[in-house]
Amino acid sequence: MTDSSGFRGLVLGAAAGGGLPQWNCGCQNCRLARDPASGVRPQSQSSLAVSIDGDNWAILNASPDIRQQMIDNSVLHPRTLRDSPVKSVLITNGDIDHLAGLLILREKQPLDIFVTAAIGEIIDDNPVFRALDPAFVRRHAIVLEQPFALLPGLEARLFAVPGKVPLFMEDGEPELQLEGEQTVGVELKVRGKRVYYIPGCAYVGDALKARIDGADALLFDGTVFTDDEMIATGVGQKTGQRMGHMAISGPEGSLAALSELDIAEKIYVHINNTNPIWRAGPERAALEESGFQIGYDGMEIDFDTNT
Amino acid sequence: MTDSSGFRGLVLGAAAGGGLPQWNCGCQNCRLARDPASGVRPQSQSSLAVSIDGDNWAILNASPDIRQQMIDNSVLHPRTLRDSPVKSVLITNGDIDHLAGLLILREKQPLDIFVTAAIGEIIDDNPVFRALDPAFVRRHAIVLEQPFALLPGLEARLFAVPGKVPLFMEDGEPELQLEGEQTVGVELKVRGKRVYYIPGCAYVGDALKARIDGADALLFDGTVFTDDEMIATGVGQKTGQRMGHMAISGPEGSLAALSELDIAEKIYVHINNTNPIWRAGPERAALEESGFQIGYDGMEIDFDTNT
Repeated sequence: MTDSSGFRGLVLGAAAGGGLPQWNCGCQNCRLARDPASGVRPQSQSSLAVSIDGDNWAILNASPDIRQQMIDNSVLHPRTLRDSPVKSVLITNGDIDHLAGLLILREKQPLDIFVTAAIGEIIDDNPVFRALDPAFVRRHAIVLEQPFALLPGLEARLFAVPGKVPLFMEDGEPELQLEGEQTVGVELKVRGKRVYYIPGCAYVGDALKARIDGADALLFDGTVFTDDEMIATGVGQKTGQRMGHMAISGPEGSLAALSELDIAEKIYVHINNTNPIWRAGPERAALEESGFQIGYDGMEIDFDTNT
Repeated sequence: MTDSSGFRGLVLGAAAGGGLPQWNCGCQNCRLARDPASGVRPQSQSSLAVSIDGDNWAILNASPDIRQQMIDNSVLHPRTLRDSPVKSVLITNGDIDHLAGLLILREKQPLDIFVTAAIGEIIDDNPVFRALDPAFVRRHAIVLEQPFALLPGLEARLFAVPGKVPLFMEDGEPELQLEGEQTVGVELKVRGKRVYYIPGCAYVGDALKARIDGADALLFDGTVFTDDEMIATGVGQKTGQRMGHMAISGPEGSLAALSELDIAEKIYVHINNTNPIWRAGPERAALEESGFQIGYDGMEIDFDTNT
């Protein structure tokens, strides 16, 4: 155990589902990411690790890339014969990019998993997740708005944000901007400091603005820059809204909505492979000029909470 | 399309479930694999890619590491805006290290999936696999011993090998050395050349010996060197047999059984993180002296089938 106490955040994966590059995509970003000389580095699927002592970590969203993410980040390496600094995992929705990594966390390692009842039902409905032996893995059903200890000394709270059910559970056209237990944001509190993690969000309304205003850090859904980006890139038929994600740009976009607020660090994460902010250009420059940061694998968001 | 025709095999992942290093393991091999200076390189989870023209590929077992495996092997990169050289996927059992990668292969890409009816049932019983849109992904129920085209010009045949049901489907003590559709080996035939892929096998009996004798190449279950290896290493309570895998060494081991046979290339794959053959030492030397090769990520097994 170290004596220092603070908030430590570590972006394990900054990309949205599919990652950068995505296996079957030859778009400009994916081609650049496959070329080590391009300056555009590969980015893995959406996940954030947090700690307050640097020794015990919680993982927010279990990406399919979690095994490589743990190899790449030495703070997550085991220190004894069978061990992991990862003590808990929290899942913010049932999408494959946030859920599938649970399958990697088999291996009879004690672990606390925190999910809403709705996300817990998805896990229960898929016997493959029985790989997580309940003798070692304790699952906690978290009620919205009720604080709980994600790690000793790290208080968390889940709240509904507009979203939709996972793609594999769609039955006809899904309700968009659904608010409930399907898609949640996370509030983390350490000694008065507030950090918000919202990797999926279809709309920023007044209640959400009021909640996150004054935060010390916000990691927010940066899936698409423009709502029709996938269509314009020629890689798909779906808008950002249809996927449950609001665009960054435009009058209804997150850039405009979040710029009104007093938030010390604003970081886009869950960035789709098609998003132009992965490369140098006017879109990336616009964000940086507005005081936003673009997340990347290995990014650290640390601050001392004693001050 | 190239004019040359031959058999091309590419080991995408040489390690067993969990990979090397495994996320929560601090055994000697895992520690070495986390140290770039050790000479023991990380190895990803069990998968083999095969092709006869170098342009169209089939993947045998969809490892959870498939996204990184596709990044690491340029022959699998897309060549147009949405594309993949991977045309088909075959699954040899329902274990997570062979099945979970299917979740990565969503994204509306045409794909043929070949499985036995029993393995297909596992997929059907887990709604998360609905992420594979049937409008793009065709699933073929393969009958044991019936030849089928895994790729145009590449004939394959599945056969039962002794194994057990996946861990997450165990209900009490499972039947070991169960022979049926749960665990299969694969025969690949190209112009008279025969290649066998058997990443999980609990016992080599006379019928299996007769089948694989005279083969041009065999990729075989190298999970553990000794049956009690995990217990002796202190990382678990299970024997190799309890996990559905025969040991390499010993009078009942695969080294003895396979050494009797006339097989041009014998390669161990699906090697557990605890297996001493990952590092230099008497166990590795014994295999190499007996004419066996130790698989590794990126290993190529190519031969011209025109000769």
